[in-house]
Amino acid sequence: MTDTSATSAAAQAPSGVVDLLGLLAYAELVSFFRLSDAAGLAPDLAAKGELAGVAATEYRHYRMLHERLAAMGADPEAAMAPFVEPLDAWHGRTEPRTWLESLVKTYVGDGIAGDFYRTVAEHADAETAEAVRGAVSETERAEAVAVRVRTAVQEDPKLAGPLSLWARRLVGEALSQAQLVAAARPELAALVARGATGGDSGEGGSGGKGDLAAVSRLFAGLTEAHSARLEAMGLSG
Amino acid sequence: MTDTSATSAAAQAPSGVVDLLGLLAYAELVSFFRLSDAAGLAPDLAAKGELAGVAATEYRHYRMLHERLAAMGADPEAAMAPFVEPLDAWHGRTEPRTWLESLVKTYVGDGIAGDFYRTVAEHADAETAEAVRGAVSETERAEAVAVRVRTAVQEDPKLAGPLSLWARRLVGEALSQAQLVAAARPELAALVARGATGGDSGEGGSGGKGDLAAVSRLFAGLTEAHSARLEAMGLSG
Repeated sequence: MTDTSATSAAAQAPSGVVDLLGLLAYAELVSFFRLSDAAGLAPDLAAKGELAGVAATEYRHYRMLHERLAAMGADPEAAMAPFVEPLDAWHGRTEPRTWLESLVKTYVGDGIAGDFYRTVAEHADAETAEAVRGAVSETERAEAVAVRVRTAVQEDPKLAGPLSLWARRLVGEALSQAQLVAAARPELAALVARGATGGDSGEGGSGGKGDLAAVSRLFAGLTEAHSARLEAMGLSG
Repeated sequence: MTDTSATSAAAQAPSGVVDLLGLLAYAELVSFFRLSDAAGLAPDLAAKGELAGVAATEYRHYRMLHERLAAMGADPEAAMAPFVEPLDAWHGRTEPRTWLESLVKTYVGDGIAGDFYRTVAEHADAETAEAVRGAVSETERAEAVAVRVRTAVQEDPKLAGPLSLWARRLVGEALSQAQLVAAARPELAALVARGATGGDSGEGGSGGKGDLAAVSRLFAGLTEAHSARLEAMGLSG
């Protein structure tokens, strides 16, 4: 797997890119398994089948990221390892109790992943950028999920309050895990913050005093994108 | 979905073929979700990734069967419905407690599915037969799983006893569910029994007094194939 001639590619990648690929790889793998928790909540067999389809797409993304990491000369499992605890903790604290909660969670989670894929596409080498573009476009297919939630909320407006609260909890728990990750991986935080704001400030701050500023830009970016996603589902922040 | 012009294809299919496709479709879907129960037992991230790969293959089979049922003019969800309870019951009674138990379960389950796919390939129309051939060859890739179990048993021969007992329980629980299914779906039982014995006896017996004979042939076939699979894993019946 570890082709030593390719090690230079990982070394040449902007700081944080291997981290970000590892984070996304484990996020896709754990989402794949966690989606099955929602299988018991599915209203019927057809919905169960669709859910399995979403999970299978997540597995394809995991494979693609795993292959990219190996091609860059990185050890994919080592790249994923730092993110196991925070992502498992997020899932553990946000177990959906209803089918609609699981749809909202899928949409919110896929949305954050999409933001991160775009950051990879901007900052990684051309081959990696090309590989993740497919994942971005598939992640955007999640719009069908937003339409379902919006329709359910239109039919029963009483759902809007509890589901908005649920979405707020999802992103709150994500931010509290992100804070731990950002503190431990300053270069990753700086990279994601650059992606979130679209600029390239903080270039010199990675690993230094710029971390706190990078983290707050990161959070601002996540929160802004999250508000847009809530609106797409007919919910409010 | 339900193309009425195709309804005749389902009507012309040998009795039991739609049942068998529905049984296999739900079996693949539920295995897909159930495999995630084993994710927590995986010894490391790489094993978790491999497990996800097995699950993703099961999803592809589910999609293929779903599409074949729809193309035949059958309602895929209606075809699966009779098998939800017995398959869920089987999984509920055979929850693996260790990684090796989950490997043995995967191998035994995939093996039984493979026998059923071969029966479909023999008795269904050419297009359906062609579609399931891919599933048979992928199911046979499970040999890697057998090698893993055999290696573990060779390294620690004390495992052979408990794992052989586990395998016996898996097939015992499967037979007790199969008995209920066979009683409720005599045409399916007759079809599978013909497949298991390779002959075409019982052609006139479907739905009649031949059922009991068909069921015992079915059980004999399952048990015989199961013994061969135990041996492949270095276990004994």
